[in-house]
Amino acid sequence: MSDGHERAADGDRPTERRLIELIRRAAPAAPGVRVGIGDDCAVLEPSPGGALLATTDLLLEDVHFRRRYASPDDIGWKALAVNLSDVAAMGGRPRWALVALAVPETVVAADVEAFFAGALALAAEHGVAIVGGDTSASPGGWIVNVTVLGEAVHAPLLRSTARPGDVVAVTGALGRAAAGLALLERGEAPAGLTAAARADAAAAHLRPRPRVAEGRWLAAAGGVTAMIDLSDGLATDLAHVAEESRGGARVELTRVPVGASARAVAAALGRDPVAWATSGGEDYELLLTCEPGAFARLAAGLAAATGTLLTAVGEMTPAGPGVRFVDAAGRAVPVGPGFEHFVTERARG
Amino acid sequence: MSDGHERAADGDRPTERRLIELIRRAAPAAPGVRVGIGDDCAVLEPSPGGALLATTDLLLEDVHFRRRYASPDDIGWKALAVNLSDVAAMGGRPRWALVALAVPETVVAADVEAFFAGALALAAEHGVAIVGGDTSASPGGWIVNVTVLGEAVHAPLLRSTARPGDVVAVTGALGRAAAGLALLERGEAPAGLTAAARADAAAAHLRPRPRVAEGRWLAAAGGVTAMIDLSDGLATDLAHVAEESRGGARVELTRVPVGASARAVAAALGRDPVAWATSGGEDYELLLTCEPGAFARLAAGLAAATGTLLTAVGEMTPAGPGVRFVDAAGRAVPVGPGFEHFVTERARG
Repeated sequence: MSDGHERAADGDRPTERRLIELIRRAAPAAPGVRVGIGDDCAVLEPSPGGALLATTDLLLEDVHFRRRYASPDDIGWKALAVNLSDVAAMGGRPRWALVALAVPETVVAADVEAFFAGALALAAEHGVAIVGGDTSASPGGWIVNVTVLGEAVHAPLLRSTARPGDVVAVTGALGRAAAGLALLERGEAPAGLTAAARADAAAAHLRPRPRVAEGRWLAAAGGVTAMIDLSDGLATDLAHVAEESRGGARVELTRVPVGASARAVAAALGRDPVAWATSGGEDYELLLTCEPGAFARLAAGLAAATGTLLTAVGEMTPAGPGVRFVDAAGRAVPVGPGFEHFVTERARG
Repeated sequence: MSDGHERAADGDRPTERRLIELIRRAAPAAPGVRVGIGDDCAVLEPSPGGALLATTDLLLEDVHFRRRYASPDDIGWKALAVNLSDVAAMGGRPRWALVALAVPETVVAADVEAFFAGALALAAEHGVAIVGGDTSASPGGWIVNVTVLGEAVHAPLLRSTARPGDVVAVTGALGRAAAGLALLERGEAPAGLTAAARADAAAAHLRPRPRVAEGRWLAAAGGVTAMIDLSDGLATDLAHVAEESRGGARVELTRVPVGASARAVAAALGRDPVAWATSGGEDYELLLTCEPGAFARLAAGLAAATGTLLTAVGEMTPAGPGVRFVDAAGRAVPVGPGFEHFVTERARG
């Protein structure tokens, strides 16, 4: 932890030192960490000759999460998860994280410790060491920044290398996180929704599981031409791939895998689960393009290796109209833009 | 840039794409950058076999800077500078930066571009490439997080390796940043202060110059036993070294180099420049310990190589009373704690 922004310590406020000890205890003797938290910089030992992956995300209270229903450990988990998802999208191996947190003066030590416990729980699942950070007082709400460093075991999978004719595919099922967000924003549970569907959707929003093992397997398998993680939603993220690859894409709406919990929540709330799946965002599944002849092998291999489904939803096209969604008869279907955050939503009124 | 928190674009708001283009243009074909901004992660090529240095700092409006007198380019400069200073304190070579920025919806594109221009100007001075980041809307003030990655050319200089009897020394002159902060907080310039002194002090606070070349030279020179950068102030940062090294320290107050502009500002405002030098913080000079026999060689060599003065101010002692400040007769002098930020100051009333 940098000490530049240390807070005054007192009885029930977390001192930087206490946090350092908490994290040191939780991550003893991590491989590749010569010096962890507590000096000016972490000193890390990357694997010789490998490429390094680096990504950072800033998450803000009432923009990216709400304290009303996101617990401190949920926030710590998710702040790390969204960065691990970026490493997964390159097919890389996440190794180290730096975590910066600013909280209002009124926040008690237990909440700050719970935040780090949430991040550490996910870090441990992926063999990631928290090697640095920063703590500060916030004049507003909670502010979290996480940087993750990873290593490219295989050639990193980019967004810019999809080709016309490639199959477009996604892991898992979509719309769960948007369903969870709708539920949590509503507060009261709707009638007729099972506890299991509610829990699945809420967890998808609060504690996403980045597809790290899937990303690594896909990068090793060969035949994948481009990959990105689904943070903004299928419509927006596929548009990024298309634009960076200077092509277009066509998605058959009926082939988009919609999560069972998303369907259940949508039914209970009178909403459209397919819109959540295409435009809800924050599912943190992987979106990839692959050679048409490779898809069946990739889907079977990924399911065997990780238990995760891979579903073909469309194909890349020559440059032209961007991303088009079509129905089973090939007719264009309008699909809204991807997930935007609370501030923007408020600004729109 | 991650697109997870992209804002809606319109006429005079900066789009993520425009920022990406701005930064891509400013940093073409940086060495060691296989993929820069625009994908899920940056893909970097560290020097084979070297240790990697990583540090992160979160800077918040009205905690670490004020928009009233810090321009957007000042903020960008300083957010990078404080991280470069951490790499300098290890004796490392900074290489890559990830920059996350959240600004209120009312901020215009030109201000965001000026922020990045400030960071890019300092990055260019140090051969650092901005390889990733994140932009977001902030529901409060400006929020900046910068992560810097560097490489250890020599064995990194830690805080924990000072030994009793080692000389304690600092680069440059202290108290300038605290003097600048006092001036800027006051607003109106005091009578009798030269424009040059005012400019020097203000620049020390707004656009600190991290001692990167000095840190690298010192790490290569041999004889330095520990190093840290002066972010919290001499009293606090030396206490970190003493504590991590399980020792104490003794500083002769009359030997502490006080900046000329700090003396001038203090005289004009009726303040104590020595208190600024010991406890003001944010000077981003280097504090080191060295073998007593090495000091003269280090001071002469550093001045010859970089033009920067190295001043011995005291010595490390066996574990005991922490850091003691003494006058020329050896009598203990009370010295306050280091720099604390606006929020804490407000909370204290």
